[in-house]
Amino acid sequence: MSSTMGQVIRCRAAVAWEAGKPLVIEEVEVAPPQAMEVRLKILYTALCHTDVYFWEAKGQTPVFPRIFGHEAGGIVESVGEGVTELSLGDHVLPVFTGECGECRHCKSEESNMCDLLRINTDRGVMIGDGKSRFSIKGKPIYHFVGTSTFSEYTVVHVGCVAKINPQAPLDKVCVFSCGISTGLGAALNVAKPKPGSVVAIFGLGAVGLAAAEGARLSGASRIIGIDLNPSRFEIAKKFGVTEFLNPKDHDKPIQEVIAAMTDGGVDRSIECTGSISAMISAFECVHDGWGVAVLVGVPNKDDAFKTHPMNLLNERTLKGTFFGNYKPRSDIPVVVEKYMKKELELELEKFITHEVSFLEINKAFEYMLAGESLRCIIRMEP
Amino acid sequence: MSSTMGQVIRCRAAVAWEAGKPLVIEEVEVAPPQAMEVRLKILYTALCHTDVYFWEAKGQTPVFPRIFGHEAGGIVESVGEGVTELSLGDHVLPVFTGECGECRHCKSEESNMCDLLRINTDRGVMIGDGKSRFSIKGKPIYHFVGTSTFSEYTVVHVGCVAKINPQAPLDKVCVFSCGISTGLGAALNVAKPKPGSVVAIFGLGAVGLAAAEGARLSGASRIIGIDLNPSRFEIAKKFGVTEFLNPKDHDKPIQEVIAAMTDGGVDRSIECTGSISAMISAFECVHDGWGVAVLVGVPNKDDAFKTHPMNLLNERTLKGTFFGNYKPRSDIPVVVEKYMKKELELELEKFITHEVSFLEINKAFEYMLAGESLRCIIRMEP
Repeated sequence: MSSTMGQVIRCRAAVAWEAGKPLVIEEVEVAPPQAMEVRLKILYTALCHTDVYFWEAKGQTPVFPRIFGHEAGGIVESVGEGVTELSLGDHVLPVFTGECGECRHCKSEESNMCDLLRINTDRGVMIGDGKSRFSIKGKPIYHFVGTSTFSEYTVVHVGCVAKINPQAPLDKVCVFSCGISTGLGAALNVAKPKPGSVVAIFGLGAVGLAAAEGARLSGASRIIGIDLNPSRFEIAKKFGVTEFLNPKDHDKPIQEVIAAMTDGGVDRSIECTGSISAMISAFECVHDGWGVAVLVGVPNKDDAFKTHPMNLLNERTLKGTFFGNYKPRSDIPVVVEKYMKKELELELEKFITHEVSFLEINKAFEYMLAGESLRCIIRMEP
Repeated sequence: MSSTMGQVIRCRAAVAWEAGKPLVIEEVEVAPPQAMEVRLKILYTALCHTDVYFWEAKGQTPVFPRIFGHEAGGIVESVGEGVTELSLGDHVLPVFTGECGECRHCKSEESNMCDLLRINTDRGVMIGDGKSRFSIKGKPIYHFVGTSTFSEYTVVHVGCVAKINPQAPLDKVCVFSCGISTGLGAALNVAKPKPGSVVAIFGLGAVGLAAAEGARLSGASRIIGIDLNPSRFEIAKKFGVTEFLNPKDHDKPIQEVIAAMTDGGVDRSIECTGSISAMISAFECVHDGWGVAVLVGVPNKDDAFKTHPMNLLNERTLKGTFFGNYKPRSDIPVVVEKYMKKELELELEKFITHEVSFLEINKAFEYMLAGESLRCIIRMEP
């Protein structure tokens, strides 16, 4: 039993007081975990574009003050009532979406969109009692997607915690808790390119490059990367991308350019930007008869996906995925295990371009906003 | 060798001289088959809505005078140069789309959209030499989708001919050459509902009812039929449809009505009307996480399929199919064989609501336009 079990813990957290303003390292109180919750000591966290998106809060419901962060690795400090799957000292990855194990989605082999614990970006409190576990001098500080890993300690629903091999290096495998799994799963679980396939990847950030890795691992013969930022191509080559297209360099729609390069279209496309025009291009660039387009990027609220229905009738498939179709508790430990055994030949180091101490967390935001980083690991301990 | 081999055959054909005007039984000349073509004696043909659609020619390129007809059964009368797979007397179903066996589509397990012989509704001539094989006093009469089965004899590319078991009753299995296979394949090959699934079928004509049969054969527990014509429900019950919805009876979009009836949406939906609003409803009525919507109906030229991309990201799948994903030459003989062996427990008689003699062919049009018939078989011999 830990000496802090059942006690409020005082620790450091990076608090976002206002949209778009630098985070402030504060001393916060972290309440003990309640029923079906666990309290985690976070060792490493990484910055994902989704944190930045909700921190900027352009168009989203602003929920402040808030503790962001959802890609992380840590150790169980204490568990609440009813928690049987986890115990003190377990190595874990918190995940922004959960797996209750009981709902139709959790019982379906095809879905990972748990009814109870599905991502909710507007909720700033715990699902059990509608309260926050974080406070500063008694005033609540809100949670983010049930994880809030920009804190030395955090409280998470047990359904959002993947228990992993304690031998796994948390400073690396922490990136499996969001972006890398999302891209990798989009390729391996959803697009499923056959060996020799031609695959297009829209958006060459961390998620798109993880999708490219998935395509490479599947034996794709050509991987065409599409991005508006030409500086991405050199990096992308390390991830198996063989050709690069910048839509700005072409007068005609990029799907037509791709069709011309590939004798009618690619076998699979994976859209990782969230731009509606990229989604439409990603769909329309797949070959008729067998092409499959997979949407990963999150669109804006008012976007409309629009295409001529004949594009569908010509035997194209369009599908979306969420967290790479991985179930957080069932599948992520297996992914980590395969990575450890080198069955999944993935070099996570390629994704980790930067590392900063917790006190320097705002630098991670700067790197991402400047488009310089893929993943910046934030060390919680000095 | 038949006595007519290599000769022009004079026979009766129902000629459409003008859009929307009754067909006229005329004596036509049918030229001998050229390289890779076969000449067929048609014994039975059926009327499909696609014939009516192009005969009405509202919005399509008008190609007249023309011999319509594409659902049929017949016997090979003679073969052209290079034809090795078929010989005199073979029982066959001509198909409106082909299988050359050589192109990327034919070589792909996933596609049936042959590059060479894919349906072309604007072409009124043979693909080999760009000429028609039909004439009246030397003036050409155009073909329709390479089949033109409203004629006692017709010439078809060998790639568009399925050779079937000669024991199969041509007056029944002729309906496998278009609509029934389209609907059945959409369910069995594309939607693939699991046992116990809930399936929605949009449009309860012959294609939709064949899709319902496919859902029933797959073990669906509920089959919800959607149609604007309430008289269809009684018939639909015979095809396994368990519930009926008329969008006119509801104030809210039918996808919302379906979601409310099915705890969030159906497992599979199959759209068989071609109406763009039905396509959108068919997609939006499937359950998130695992729902698959299959589009079968052919849209208008200017239609746009429009939905919020979040509907896709929530792990719904949208795909189209053409001729039920069956390859005409490889798969249709197998379908007929399974039907003969009762492995496919399908009563084709349920689809055949009317029968007329060739001279009465315009009655078949009347039945269909009045919404009275599913399939009307036209007997070529008195």
